[in-house]
Amino acid sequence: MAEAVMFPFDFTAYLAKARTRIESALDASLGPERPNQLREAMRYSLLAGGKRLRPILCLAACELTGSDSENAISTAVAIEMIHTMSLIHDDLPSMDNDDLRRGRPTNHKVYGEAIAILAGDALLTRAFEMVALRSPNVPKDRLLKVVGELSLVAGAPGLVGGQVEDLESEGKAVDLDTLEFIHIHKTGALLKASVVCGALIGGADEDLLIALSTYAKGIGLAFQIVDDILDVTASSEVLGKTAGKDLLADKSTYPKLLGLDESRKKAKELIRKSKDVIHPWSDKAAPLLSLADYIINRDR
Amino acid sequence: MAEAVMFPFDFTAYLAKARTRIESALDASLGPERPNQLREAMRYSLLAGGKRLRPILCLAACELTGSDSENAISTAVAIEMIHTMSLIHDDLPSMDNDDLRRGRPTNHKVYGEAIAILAGDALLTRAFEMVALRSPNVPKDRLLKVVGELSLVAGAPGLVGGQVEDLESEGKAVDLDTLEFIHIHKTGALLKASVVCGALIGGADEDLLIALSTYAKGIGLAFQIVDDILDVTASSEVLGKTAGKDLLADKSTYPKLLGLDESRKKAKELIRKSKDVIHPWSDKAAPLLSLADYIINRDR
Repeated sequence: MAEAVMFPFDFTAYLAKARTRIESALDASLGPERPNQLREAMRYSLLAGGKRLRPILCLAACELTGSDSENAISTAVAIEMIHTMSLIHDDLPSMDNDDLRRGRPTNHKVYGEAIAILAGDALLTRAFEMVALRSPNVPKDRLLKVVGELSLVAGAPGLVGGQVEDLESEGKAVDLDTLEFIHIHKTGALLKASVVCGALIGGADEDLLIALSTYAKGIGLAFQIVDDILDVTASSEVLGKTAGKDLLADKSTYPKLLGLDESRKKAKELIRKSKDVIHPWSDKAAPLLSLADYIINRDR
Repeated sequence: MAEAVMFPFDFTAYLAKARTRIESALDASLGPERPNQLREAMRYSLLAGGKRLRPILCLAACELTGSDSENAISTAVAIEMIHTMSLIHDDLPSMDNDDLRRGRPTNHKVYGEAIAILAGDALLTRAFEMVALRSPNVPKDRLLKVVGELSLVAGAPGLVGGQVEDLESEGKAVDLDTLEFIHIHKTGALLKASVVCGALIGGADEDLLIALSTYAKGIGLAFQIVDDILDVTASSEVLGKTAGKDLLADKSTYPKLLGLDESRKKAKELIRKSKDVIHPWSDKAAPLLSLADYIINRDR
């Protein structure tokens, strides 16, 4: 269902429609797993709401290539699965020991640690299943590239590496380089992959892939800076997770290292640059341009 | 390095050579991950020795198709990574709470729970990377099939589902059906995938795939029965893991449900049938025939 994007672009309607599609695809992605408890634990976290920013970016990037974004829906789901599994594992008592996520008790609080670990493992593998076995109509070489991309961002060179560095940095004074390493790996890598994988599914050429990578790197870092700012300025109620947690854990954050004003300025500058780089495709870039603005203007 | 298998077949030499190849490929599979602790934790468990039965089965199945088994080496490594990650996670305090594995302290005993969970996650994703990005010379449609197969056996329809059912069964009287569900998912699925993926890489036709699936299902179940028998009859020293653990945990096992003699008989019968089904390929089947015998005659 590739759509001709008309100006003025109604971003609110676009977002609502994309979210509905994604929620429905997420719901359909979990089969009748045995035992029940495993299925329930997987559903509990995958269908817990959230902004669905990553799958939306994936679909929007696929649309930018001129391809039917329906081809990217399984990949979009896969990306949200990887994101969800990383949240489940990061929240565990042996890691960030978090009780609240998206306004509800964390997975291990409801199902216990063993099931939470295993539900995460199952979501991670189901992500690869979505790409390899549940993406009809997409050329196999493109799917294999997506598998490769996801295997990098979900593992040691991505999410896992970032989380380990993050755990090691707790309570230590870390410099801006280490902070950026953590954010690029924990947050930036998957946001970037969301865009890149959508573009790969759509068959983007090398120029477009490079432009979209640059765009995605910029919004990824901006996203994290805004996260750090919100941790200081927003309430737990609005965030749906424990606010002020970074301060309590004595974590290094952008506001701590640069100050609030400088952090806001850095985020704005990153968003401006990200929008610039996809401007040549502006006739189809409206969703990605609006998504960049959305990332910096969000309140949770 | 596909080899012409000559009769009489020197299985001991075959096994030694295959293990050397696999150890060297496993060693090369882990790059300079940051942080150090993550890399060390991954290496600690992946390079902890072990029989390497799964990767050997994978290479042997590829050889049976007449293809160069060097094409299957990355897939063989991927399978051992999945096996290793499942051991790391199963050993965690919230699961089987095991202190000893392959004669050494378990991963979380050395690196802590958080790193053990993350090292497992990193090995699981690296497995998909091995197939998608580190398998040159293999047609992409075959690699995508392997990704699909591994995504099923590593996740809810395989290892994870089996482990959850196993955790739920602890301390309960379970029937033979549930016991077989657990074993098929926890052990059988990955053993079967080892054979099937090797055959897929080699481009096996439908007949051969079906025969090898049947072979692999049989040896997989026999393997588990022998495991249960060894838990009763062997010492911890020989096993390299805690013996008698199933009895202590009041787990259902084949010896408990069928008795020792009947269990041995069942395992022998499964091995005989497995060997029968690949007999039509007997000129190239010597390694797989010997591996079937090896599974039932092993003492650890």
